[in-house]
Amino acid sequence: MGHEQIKQEYEQFKQRGLRLDMSRGKPSPEQLALSAPLLGGLDDFRAADGTDVRNYGGVVGLPEARALFGELLELSPEQVVVDGNASLALMHDTIALALLHGLPGHAPWRSLAEVTFLCPVPGYDRHFAICQALGIRMIPVPLRENGPDVGEIARLVANDASIKGIWCVPKYANPTGAVYGADVVEALASLRTAATDFRIFWDDAYRLHHLTDRKHSVPSILDACARAGHPDRAFVYASTSKITFAGAGIAALASSPQNLAWWQKHVSVRTIGPDKVNQLRHVRFLKDRANVEQLMDEHRKLLAPKFAAVFTAFERTLGDVAGVSWTRPEGGYFVDLVTPPGRARRTVQLAREAGIVLTPAGASFPYGEDPDDEHLRIAPSFPSLAEITQAAHGIALALKLAVSE
Amino acid sequence: MGHEQIKQEYEQFKQRGLRLDMSRGKPSPEQLALSAPLLGGLDDFRAADGTDVRNYGGVVGLPEARALFGELLELSPEQVVVDGNASLALMHDTIALALLHGLPGHAPWRSLAEVTFLCPVPGYDRHFAICQALGIRMIPVPLRENGPDVGEIARLVANDASIKGIWCVPKYANPTGAVYGADVVEALASLRTAATDFRIFWDDAYRLHHLTDRKHSVPSILDACARAGHPDRAFVYASTSKITFAGAGIAALASSPQNLAWWQKHVSVRTIGPDKVNQLRHVRFLKDRANVEQLMDEHRKLLAPKFAAVFTAFERTLGDVAGVSWTRPEGGYFVDLVTPPGRARRTVQLAREAGIVLTPAGASFPYGEDPDDEHLRIAPSFPSLAEITQAAHGIALALKLAVSE
Repeated sequence: MGHEQIKQEYEQFKQRGLRLDMSRGKPSPEQLALSAPLLGGLDDFRAADGTDVRNYGGVVGLPEARALFGELLELSPEQVVVDGNASLALMHDTIALALLHGLPGHAPWRSLAEVTFLCPVPGYDRHFAICQALGIRMIPVPLRENGPDVGEIARLVANDASIKGIWCVPKYANPTGAVYGADVVEALASLRTAATDFRIFWDDAYRLHHLTDRKHSVPSILDACARAGHPDRAFVYASTSKITFAGAGIAALASSPQNLAWWQKHVSVRTIGPDKVNQLRHVRFLKDRANVEQLMDEHRKLLAPKFAAVFTAFERTLGDVAGVSWTRPEGGYFVDLVTPPGRARRTVQLAREAGIVLTPAGASFPYGEDPDDEHLRIAPSFPSLAEITQAAHGIALALKLAVSE
Repeated sequence: MGHEQIKQEYEQFKQRGLRLDMSRGKPSPEQLALSAPLLGGLDDFRAADGTDVRNYGGVVGLPEARALFGELLELSPEQVVVDGNASLALMHDTIALALLHGLPGHAPWRSLAEVTFLCPVPGYDRHFAICQALGIRMIPVPLRENGPDVGEIARLVANDASIKGIWCVPKYANPTGAVYGADVVEALASLRTAATDFRIFWDDAYRLHHLTDRKHSVPSILDACARAGHPDRAFVYASTSKITFAGAGIAALASSPQNLAWWQKHVSVRTIGPDKVNQLRHVRFLKDRANVEQLMDEHRKLLAPKFAAVFTAFERTLGDVAGVSWTRPEGGYFVDLVTPPGRARRTVQLAREAGIVLTPAGASFPYGEDPDDEHLRIAPSFPSLAEITQAAHGIALALKLAVSE
């Protein structure tokens, strides 16, 4: 198909006057409706141990909320603390506390000349935004299909004591859908690091968020670190944001006893405790892992057709375009659409002119800079199936036009 | 009454085997029950502007929640952001952000050799704990009946550029019940400070928490600061912790446009937004200021008799003990019981042996150090009226015995 023909097809699409924001990985109203009972009444206000959830206290969360997350994360309740509605806040605060107070037995990071994090790319823009805001230097490392390049990571951390952390989304990674292999988990746990307070920030955001029958499993990073003689190396984050309500769920942090004691000590200065009413609502609604897995199957029924529509549209319009590819994630919330070098920004612009707001090109890289300008994060979850079918076609046309220019 | 007789009376009290924790200012179950509708169902999930409160977003809070706090604080909605369940967290985070990033146009406090806060004493232990944890030096200044000693404050801030803040509880202060006079508000707003980023941390925790018909009013610190040419000087904090549920309310921060823009910028890195479902529940339940004031009247009916029981017991047992006095707050949650020098710790110990856990002596002072060991914070809210009547008698006996020793 020649440039003029592509342009004509794109212009025709533009005439449809679509208006769609696909910039973020938001659950759809239909997904949120699956947790409607959370909007209902709470029969009583007593936790299992008699705690009045309405009153102050309980900085590490309700015991039954810890037990529920323990079951979901395959950890014991003592390894988990449960907090408010945002795991992102737990990640931010872990780093802010490390800056202000230092990790157990170590100097505050604020006293150091430089603090560096490794950032598997493409990755999650909000992770990188935390580093950027807090003045933490970022070194990108390549993310493969089975996790980040552990050879390069090993080389970097062995010699640079300023490298204090690495961001990891171990399952159905944002945005590629990568699933870490057991060997990668083992290698990360076993790294010999120049920094003695090196930490893995393990954002287990999509642990239960399968899109196919192949329900991937990733070995426990906490167990692997303990076995490797680095029991304090990992902080694990999870939430119900994409299980119940994106804005009104509950979030959890899991780590070693020493890390959790450190966390509790510092967080107790900040708050008397999280919202235990919402924790109890969640425990009553979610019940146990089996019930959560059934709920996730309902999410999958709503999400999988949207991903399929994206794949179909891309296949049809982009299947024969050289240098274009996309991931086919088996879980999570995103597709990574790879353009020929230098064509991602232009595609976003053309899509916007056709009424489709995409995540800014470069967002999946530290400082928003994709060196080859070739990654686009596609977020199919929020629009309706009809909308996403149209939009995927429009995005494909925009990319095809960007390539032909 | 001689020592032996006092001791005998104390020992008799001990035999009752009371077990009561009066260490914190927690609302009673009866108070929490006043907000039972919050445990009920939420009819729909749409805010007035159509926002789906279940989903992500809205880092400054729901417009109607901002409007409600605006009404309660006598400010416009644009001057207020609404967050999660803890105003303490907002205070902590304001200071943490000032340390990490600096206030608008100023260097991060972490880059300074010293940061100092003024602490009116006796004051709120959790304020002081934040400073202590974050390495902020504290200078106590005397709190009078109508606010802190502004003469001494003016002298200190004029010459010491490390003084970046002052803690204030302007109405029914914890623990004395002091109410700031209009002249004090004016003086604080007009202070000439060596630091150009000096801030007043205005914890308006008990704004609507009257115990008598005399409903005190304190002039707006934001207005006073603006009039005095220091529009960015004050951060105002409030919450519904002692209006609805202590552990599951909503909290607000009010300040100048520049300060709120700074807040929003940094908090947007930490979270995608607060729990808007709970904000909408609160708006639907609390409705408006008139309705909140009716609710506060119901709180007062439960609280005022408990304070009266404390006053009666103290009067009867301690009325003739030299060097003993107590405040008679007209609002708030606490009574400051003043012992003769060096008798507060001993009284806490004797009370504990009689089954009554009090706030540790010294808690109302920076570093927990009451130089004269003479202040005890009495928290009558949580126990039942029968319990508090007994407990106040027991505390009075413990103090009387401590004095007679």
